[in-house]
Amino acid sequence: MEPTSWIGYTASLLTTISFLPQVIKVLIERKTRDISRNMYLVLTVGLGFWLAYGILKEDLPIILANTFTLIFTTVILYFKLKEKEPEEN
Amino acid sequence: MEPTSWIGYTASLLTTISFLPQVIKVLIERKTRDISRNMYLVLTVGLGFWLAYGILKEDLPIILANTFTLIFTTVILYFKLKEKEPEEN
Repeated sequence: MEPTSWIGYTASLLTTISFLPQVIKVLIERKTRDISRNMYLVLTVGLGFWLAYGILKEDLPIILANTFTLIFTTVILYFKLKEKEPEEN
Repeated sequence: MEPTSWIGYTASLLTTISFLPQVIKVLIERKTRDISRNMYLVLTVGLGFWLAYGILKEDLPIILANTFTLIFTTVILYFKLKEKEPEEN
């Protein structure tokens, strides 16, 4: 594999796993008070665009990273939007 | 501009601005207790790899997104690491 691909897959792996602690925390505690709803809304839509971009460019590191990160942010967002407190930012 | 480029720039803009509320919050409040240090460490290193990947692929949306997001996560991480509480995850 060429160096550029390795760098892409390393980037893909690191940014994807960086969301795991937050996902695990939300799944275990079911608490999302300190999480910014607006950040995760914009981030999730943005990751959808990155996934489309990766598919159109046929770029596997971009496709992989954004598929998994999109799943993670969707889980976080689901629990955030399900939460009953209306005062969140 | 072709549709693929538009999708890339939209993705770039959305995922970058999604970090702004957190950066502004940290700059104003200087409090980072609820932020995961490990998430931001791994994320920041990962964004560095994405930036290198974008430069090697000469992909402007990837370069732009990761330059700005890297600045934002570095600011967040700086205040997190400066914080005195040693019990953070």
